[in-house]
Amino acid sequence: MSFDVQGLKFDDKGLIPAIAQDETSGEVLMMAWMNAESVERTLQTGRVTYWSRSRQSFWVKGESSGHVQELVDFRVDCDRDCLLVVVRQTGPACHTNRRSCFYTAVREGEEIELMKPMHG
Amino acid sequence: MSFDVQGLKFDDKGLIPAIAQDETSGEVLMMAWMNAESVERTLQTGRVTYWSRSRQSFWVKGESSGHVQELVDFRVDCDRDCLLVVVRQTGPACHTNRRSCFYTAVREGEEIELMKPMHG
Repeated sequence: MSFDVQGLKFDDKGLIPAIAQDETSGEVLMMAWMNAESVERTLQTGRVTYWSRSRQSFWVKGESSGHVQELVDFRVDCDRDCLLVVVRQTGPACHTNRRSCFYTAVREGEEIELMKPMHG
Repeated sequence: MSFDVQGLKFDDKGLIPAIAQDETSGEVLMMAWMNAESVERTLQTGRVTYWSRSRQSFWVKGESSGHVQELVDFRVDCDRDCLLVVVRQTGPACHTNRRSCFYTAVREGEEIELMKPMHG
């Protein structure tokens, strides 16, 4: 079956959540949003391209930082309202310079920092 | 630092996306939504509890199917607007009986089914 971006379920702002997972470690790196055109750009270019809600513009991940995400596999969930992009991540995925945005755990009511910023 | 559920950023419907990841395989199983009380219930009970947008009610994952998600680790992202729950999953996570909801890949414009429904 051919993939049709219009078959995805976008929310009332025209957006769909996209989870980025590291192809090697399996680590969940981040979650951001895509609109129909960022889905198409991601598939066409192989560079993961989100829609920045704060800047209201396309966000080619790593375009300014160099911390690009090369698309390895693009997946759609059963309800077609969430995406999973498996990526080859250069450098840290998080703007805090940590490998993943999910570096805070909640254990017994306390917040625990699981990883430190990367160097360089 | 103590965790305060009110420090999370909920959307205009009072919801926050929660990604479930299998503790053993690292596989991303599903994404669903939580409100403040489902976050608290998840942390208190150790049973992952979403908010069903279609039914407008709490959804203790597996309550009817038996395909429960036991909470192993609860994580918050850098922006505090997305959650990652690491879980011990009993049976399939997806309502289609597949291990993960992300069983469809898009490759060269075609949809590919990556996994079949589980038996039993």
